[in-house]
This record gives sequence, C-alpha cells and structure tokens, in this order.
Amino acid sequence: MEKRRILVVGLGLIGGSLAMALQGFENFEVVGAVRSQATYDKAAAKHAADRLTFDPAGQLPGADVVILCQDPAGIIGFLEEHRDRFKPGCLIWDVCGVKTAVMEAAKCLPDGVDFIGCHPMAGKEASGIDNAEAGLFRNTHFIVTPGPRATREHLDLLRRMADHCRFGDVIETTPERHDQMIAYTSQLMHVIAVSVCDNDGLFSCKGFEGGSFRDCTRVAALDPAMWTQLFTLNAPALAQVVGMLEERMRQYRTAIENNDRDALRAMLAAASGRKKQIDLERARGDDVRPVWTCQE
Amino acid sequence: MEKRRILVVGLGLIGGSLAMALQGFENFEVVGAVRSQATYDKAAAKHAADRLTFDPAGQLPGADVVILCQDPAGIIGFLEEHRDRFKPGCLIWDVCGVKTAVMEAAKCLPDGVDFIGCHPMAGKEASGIDNAEAGLFRNTHFIVTPGPRATREHLDLLRRMADHCRFGDVIETTPERHDQMIAYTSQLMHVIAVSVCDNDGLFSCKGFEGGSFRDCTRVAALDPAMWTQLFTLNAPALAQVVGMLEERMRQYRTAIENNDRDALRAMLAAASGRKKQIDLERARGDDVRPVWTCQE
Repeated sequence: MEKRRILVVGLGLIGGSLAMALQGFENFEVVGAVRSQATYDKAAAKHAADRLTFDPAGQLPGADVVILCQDPAGIIGFLEEHRDRFKPGCLIWDVCGVKTAVMEAAKCLPDGVDFIGCHPMAGKEASGIDNAEAGLFRNTHFIVTPGPRATREHLDLLRRMADHCRFGDVIETTPERHDQMIAYTSQLMHVIAVSVCDNDGLFSCKGFEGGSFRDCTRVAALDPAMWTQLFTLNAPALAQVVGMLEERMRQYRTAIENNDRDALRAMLAAASGRKKQIDLERARGDDVRPVWTCQE
Repeated sequence: MEKRRILVVGLGLIGGSLAMALQGFENFEVVGAVRSQATYDKAAAKHAADRLTFDPAGQLPGADVVILCQDPAGIIGFLEEHRDRFKPGCLIWDVCGVKTAVMEAAKCLPDGVDFIGCHPMAGKEASGIDNAEAGLFRNTHFIVTPGPRATREHLDLLRRMADHCRFGDVIETTPERHDQMIAYTSQLMHVIAVSVCDNDGLFSCKGFEGGSFRDCTRVAALDPAMWTQLFTLNAPALAQVVGMLEERMRQYRTAIENNDRDALRAMLAAASGRKKQIDLERARGDDVRPVWTCQE
C-alpha cells in the first residue's frame, strides 16, 4: 500500500518533537521541512523525520496532513502564501499558542482543505531541535479548536495522531475560549516569570532560592520575538488577567503595609483553601476527562 | 561515653524531618517534643526521633542542642518562657523563615546560652509529620545568621549537623540581609501563588494548564496562620518587592494594551536575557559556594 504523507513544517522544539513522535503512525511517512542547514544536520543526526526537505511548498501536493510548527506570524504567512497549493481533502493543523488569530487566517483556504487549530500544552524552557524528543507530549493536554468545516474523519485522524504521540487527553473547545483560558494558565505565568526576573535581586539572591523561586521563574528564558507575537495576538484577554493579578497583589501589599493580620489571614485562607480543593480534585482524578470532552 | 542530647521542639514537616535526618549524628540522642497525641503516635510509628516527649521544658536542663521548629510566634514565645531553663553552654537554633524578629527575641537569653538563627531552605507543599522525611534537606541551602555571641565551637557543630542532614551548602549572613533576600526569593513567590489562585478561572481552567501553571501555583496550598506571621514579621521588605512586581506587571500590561511591540520585545529580551545568564552561571557551577561563604 502506498504511504500517505505527513509534512511537518518547522523542526523546532515542538515541530521536531512531533516529527519524532509521529514516526511509525499508521501508514504515514513523516517529512520534516527546515530552513537552515544547521537544523537539517541536527535533524538528520537524530533522525527527527523519515525524510527532510528545504522545500515545504514542493511537498504540499502530496501531503495528506500538514502540521504547521512555525511561530505565529510564520504559520499565518504560510497559510496565506500557499493557500492554493494544499492537496484537496488534506488536513492542516498547527501548534500555535493562540487560536483565534490563526483560525481567522485559515479562512483564506479553499473549500475542501480542512484546517483544525491545535495547541499541544507541552514545552520546555529550552527551545530548538536540540531539545526535541518523542516523549515531550506524554500526559500533556492536546487542545483542539475545529472550525465549522472540520470533518469527523479528520477529527478522528487527529485523535489517533494524539494517541500515538501519547498525549494525556484531547480537549475540544472554541478558539475564543482557548485564548481566554490560555491567557490565565499560560501567558500570565510567563508575564509573572519575566517580571520576577526584572529585579536587581536576581543576581544577588544566589544561596537564598528554594524550589518556589526556581519553579516560578523557570519559563522566563523565553524567545522574546515569539512571545511578543503571542502576547499581542491575545492582547485583550491577557491585559485583563494581568490587571486582575495586579489588583490582587495590591490588596496583599495593602494588608501587609497596614499590618492587617485579620485581612491577610482571611485572604490567605481563601486562596489556599481553593488550591487545596483543586489539588484534592486532581488527586481524586476528577479532572481526568474523556477524549473529546467539550469545554463549553 | 555518655550520649549528648539534641532536643527538637515541634515535629511538623521541618522539625520531624530534622529529627529523622539527625539520628545517628555523632554521639547525640535525638529527643522530639510534640504537643498532640496524634503527632506522638505518627512520630513513634515512623521512628521520627530516638525518644519522644510531651514536656520539652523538662528536657531542657539536659539538652546540649535545642532546635526550635514551631511557627514564628511559637519560637519567640518558647525563648521568652524558658529563657532561664536552658543548659549553660548549650546551642539553640531555629528554623523560622524570618530572622530579624527571632534574633531580636533571642536577646532575652542569659549569657552563655548561644542562639544561632537558621533557615533551612527546604519544604514541600504538604505539611506535618506525615510528610516528614530524612532526605528533605538534600541539596538545599542552609542559611545561618549567627549573633555576635556565637562561638566558633557552636558554628562548627552546626556545620557538622548540616553536613549530616545532607544540605547542599551553608550560607552565613546577617538577619537583615536574610529577610531582605527571602522577601524576594520566597515570600513574594507565595504572594504570587495565592494571588493567581484568587481567580475564578482556577476551577474552570482544567484541561488548559501546563507545567508553568502547576509550578507557579504549587506553593499556594499554604498554612494561612503561619504565613500571616511570616509576612507581617517581614512587612517592609515584602511590601517593597510586591510593589516592584506590581509596577513591572503594570508596564507589561500597558505595552500589551497599547500594542507596543517594540517595548514588549525589549522588555522580554532584557528579562529573558537575565534569566538565560543566571541559568548559564548555574549550569557552569558558578553559584556553588564554599561552606561559610559570607554574603555581605
């Protein structure tokens, strides 16, 4: 039987890891598209894909699945530039951390080409093909925002790919809800991490850091260009949660400055109680969801 | 040779773990003082100490080392209540997360009783004897703030105890510098964690959390009464760093709201560059310090 083809465009941390994780998936050949010779050489050395190319456009007519793993502007630009080169009936998905903007860009695609927005909630503090690994997605969430034209056949195919990559679950939602949630659970964590590192104490505090400091600042070593795109493409939702956190911190600071122990204890009891409840639910497995749970 | 005695007062997470880690240290017997029958039973079941007592005061005349592991008010109250019961020439140390207030309280002790403030930078999100373990301190910092009366003999004894507990290093500093640093590296991380959990999104974001969210909120399941004490005993330093973080977050929010990509990219580049530099120094081992390095 002739092999079908998955084309992974961009072999950074996520693209490289997907290309590695998807090898051996059903009867598909995994082709990885790179831009630099350095990435080509590293990808070849670690056998990141079955085959490598510098010419993704040339692979499009034969690609049954196209996975876009560039930065947000790269994904949006690729869709617009190659809109008429995709194979009719193919499935395109992406890995971008914002979904409304990407789903909007995908509207330029012709009928019969199916785009499903995806966000693998996996990562590392270190980027690039050097750090790619097949096991990156194990037990992480795979968030999916299908458009109105998404076919059941493609959704099933996507679910089988997610299973092959060992994702912990598949969460289906709308692009708008994804962006709202991710502003809080991911983008805000990155704003906090960089804000904490913007302190003169960073270099003088050696010997005084514990686990909480290492954990909170871990993701601060981010890619400035990519996160500038992610933040500005989700500006209203992100600005809102940053503003809410500022307000909470102002309340804590006021209670501390006023030596208002009752207020402080009440705030700490409420927040720690919420956290303990969530931890308990998680330990009980209450948050384990079936595949394709709708989050509306 | 007659056994000397270490008395550990309070067998919670830290006290219980210290009592476990110190068993077998030189020719010392480790006695653990508890208040409740429940803690007594659990401590006995896991052999948390060589011997257990409900009466720490009764053990004081024979105790060569006393380790105070209560909450801050408990430590300060114990010093004041039992100031005249300590064995002449004994070493007292504590594990409290603030040091200026404790060192101040220790001034009530008579001459010949040596108090050295200590802060093991170890912990877990879960507290109590149930979670105590001998390996808790492995590769963590042991911060020490000796008073002007601290003897070389007691500092050496403390260093040998730290080695026996497998601490990664021993950092000697002043109480004031400790409290300034800890406001940034530890207390601020707890203010952030509880502030993030004070959001309606906490219960609706399941399926959208990644590692950064789990890491940042991990310590929010804290003990409200103890952290109220720790925060108010270090109010000026903590209020200052919370205020600095509010200001950084306001700057990020403004850049995001104004779609000011240049400003955002510059801020992200500066902060991520600082974080990358610190990570590099750490990987190189530049922050591995000899025991008893002075941090002034």
